[in-house]
Amino acid sequence: MTAADLHRSEAPVFTEDFTGTWIAFIHQLQDDICAALQASDGLAKFEEDVWERPEGGGGRTRVISNGNVIEKGGVNTSIVFGKVTDLMRSQLKINGDSWFACGLSLVIHPLSPFVPTVHCNYRMFELYDEAGKVIDRWFGGGTDLTPYYLNLEDATHFHQTYKNVCDAVDPSLYVELKKNCDDYFVNTHRNNERRGIGGIFYDYKRPDATKSIDWWFAFAKACGYAFIDSYIPIIERRKGLEFTAENKHWQEIRRGRYTEFNLVHDRGTIFGLKTNGRIESILMSLPPTVRFEYNYQPVPGSEEDTLLQACLHPREYAN
Amino acid sequence: MTAADLHRSEAPVFTEDFTGTWIAFIHQLQDDICAALQASDGLAKFEEDVWERPEGGGGRTRVISNGNVIEKGGVNTSIVFGKVTDLMRSQLKINGDSWFACGLSLVIHPLSPFVPTVHCNYRMFELYDEAGKVIDRWFGGGTDLTPYYLNLEDATHFHQTYKNVCDAVDPSLYVELKKNCDDYFVNTHRNNERRGIGGIFYDYKRPDATKSIDWWFAFAKACGYAFIDSYIPIIERRKGLEFTAENKHWQEIRRGRYTEFNLVHDRGTIFGLKTNGRIESILMSLPPTVRFEYNYQPVPGSEEDTLLQACLHPREYAN
Repeated sequence: MTAADLHRSEAPVFTEDFTGTWIAFIHQLQDDICAALQASDGLAKFEEDVWERPEGGGGRTRVISNGNVIEKGGVNTSIVFGKVTDLMRSQLKINGDSWFACGLSLVIHPLSPFVPTVHCNYRMFELYDEAGKVIDRWFGGGTDLTPYYLNLEDATHFHQTYKNVCDAVDPSLYVELKKNCDDYFVNTHRNNERRGIGGIFYDYKRPDATKSIDWWFAFAKACGYAFIDSYIPIIERRKGLEFTAENKHWQEIRRGRYTEFNLVHDRGTIFGLKTNGRIESILMSLPPTVRFEYNYQPVPGSEEDTLLQACLHPREYAN
Repeated sequence: MTAADLHRSEAPVFTEDFTGTWIAFIHQLQDDICAALQASDGLAKFEEDVWERPEGGGGRTRVISNGNVIEKGGVNTSIVFGKVTDLMRSQLKINGDSWFACGLSLVIHPLSPFVPTVHCNYRMFELYDEAGKVIDRWFGGGTDLTPYYLNLEDATHFHQTYKNVCDAVDPSLYVELKKNCDDYFVNTHRNNERRGIGGIFYDYKRPDATKSIDWWFAFAKACGYAFIDSYIPIIERRKGLEFTAENKHWQEIRRGRYTEFNLVHDRGTIFGLKTNGRIESILMSLPPTVRFEYNYQPVPGSEEDTLLQACLHPREYAN
C-alpha cells in the first residue's frame, strides 16, 4: 500500500506532503528491519498478511515463527483513519472530526531465554477538522528490552545505543525518555514491577518552535534504525548459548508478566481494541508459550531473582 | 477467619445477623467443594494461604496443582471491606460510605483437554452509610463451563443440573441466567466468541418483595452445592481418556482465549485490581500453560472447530 492508495473517497484529505513522507519512511523501516532480523535468524522467513480495516485504512502484518532465534515475532505497519467516534472522545480524550495514525510496531519473542524479548513502536497521529485541515499532530515511539536474565553487557549496549541517538540532538532528552519508559511499562498490580529493563519512550510530542515536524521525523528515523544497532548484536552474542528446561520455565513465567502488561495496561492494545483494529495484528505481541503459576517466586540471590530485582528497581545502564 | 474475627475497629458494624450467616455458608462451601475435588483428583492436595488485606479483611486461598486431574486450580474465599474510594465511585459506580464483600471464587484447569475447565463464583456485596447501616445489598454468582472439545453428554448434564436448581424455585429463572452467562463471558474483541459454553450468571440481585434475602441465600446455597453435582461426574467420565500432543496444543490455544477474557474483560478481575485485592489470589484464575499463535484457526469441520462454533453460537443444552 502506498500513500496514493489511501486517497480513496473515505480517506481524509492529506493537506500536507509530510503525511506521505512519514508513510514511506515507516514502510522502508519495516523492510529494512525485517531483512536484518531474517538474516540474523538464518532459518525462518517473514510472511506477510495485508489487511484492510472496514472503517478506513489497513496494514501490513509480517510475522515470523519457529526460527533458529525467533520463536514468534511480528514487524507490523498500519495506516488507519476514520471519523472520531464517541468512544474515542470519552475514553481516549480525542477531539476533532477525523483522525489518522500510521506507525510501525514490532515485538520479537526469541526461543532462547538468553536472548531478550524486544518491542518497538514509532507512530504519528493526526487530527483533522471538518474541512480536512490538520488541527493537531503528534509523534510517539520507543524501544524497550525485556530480558529473562540480566546481562550487563547487553543492557549497557542497548541503552547506550539510544542514549547516543538522543545525545546527538538534545543532551537532556535521554534522561526524559528513559524515565518515561520506566514509568510506562509497569505492572502496577504487581508492586510496580517493570516489564523489563526499559529503553526509551515518548508520546504526544507536538512540533513547536524548538522542535519542528522535520526534527521529530529525523528523530523517529534515527531511533527506528537504531533498533537494528541496538538489538541484532545482542542476538549474535547470545543465540548460540545452551539453555536448560529451568531457564525456559523461567522465561515462560516472565512471559506471563509480559502478557499481563499488554492485556491489562498497554495503551496501544487498548487503542486497537477500541478502534476495531485487526485483532490478530494487535495480539501478535503476546508470547508464544506462557506459564502462570500461583505465587511463583525465584530463589533469593539467584540469576532469576537478579532479573526480577532489575525490573523492580530501574537503574542507569548507559554511560 | 470467622465473622467474629472481623469485628475489629476498622470493620464496618454488621447491623444484621445475615452477614455472619453468609460468611459461614461461604466457608462451609469452600470446605465441601475442596473435599469433593480432592477426592476426585486422587493425588494432589489443596494448600491454603490465609492472607490479610491492609485496607480491611482478607481471605483463604486454597490452591491445588499437578494432580491426576487438576493441573492448576484454586478454591478461594475472601471477606473484604473498606471505605468507598474515589476510584470505586468513578470507575465501579459505587456509592455509600463503606462496603463489604464476601464470596467464593473457584477455577479448575484440568490437565486433560477432555476435562473442561470450570469457574464458579458466589458473592454478596453490602454498602453502608456513615452510621454503619446497610443501605444496599446485592447478590451475584454463577458457574460456567469451558470445554476444549464439545461433548454433548457433558454439556447437557452441566446445564441440566443448573436448570433443575432454577426451575425448582422459579420456572423463568434459568432462561434469564443462562442468557446472562452467554452475554457476560464474551471476548468482544474476537467477534463475540464466548469463553466457553456457558452456564448461569447473575449479578446485582437485590432482595425485594418477591425474593427476600433468605430467598437469595437459599438460591446461592443451592447453586453453590450444585457445582459438585454438575462437575464431578464430568471429571469421573473423562479423566481416564488418553490424549495427544495435538489435543494439548488445542487446549493451550483455547486457554489463551481464557486469559484474554480474564485480563481484558472480567469485572471480578478488574474489581480486584482496583480495590488492591491480593494479586496472586485474583490471578490464580489464569491457566497454567498457554499458547498464543498468530491467526490460529482450527480445520473447518474438525472437533476443534465444532467447539469453536459452539463458543461463537450459544445454544440450548438442557431439556
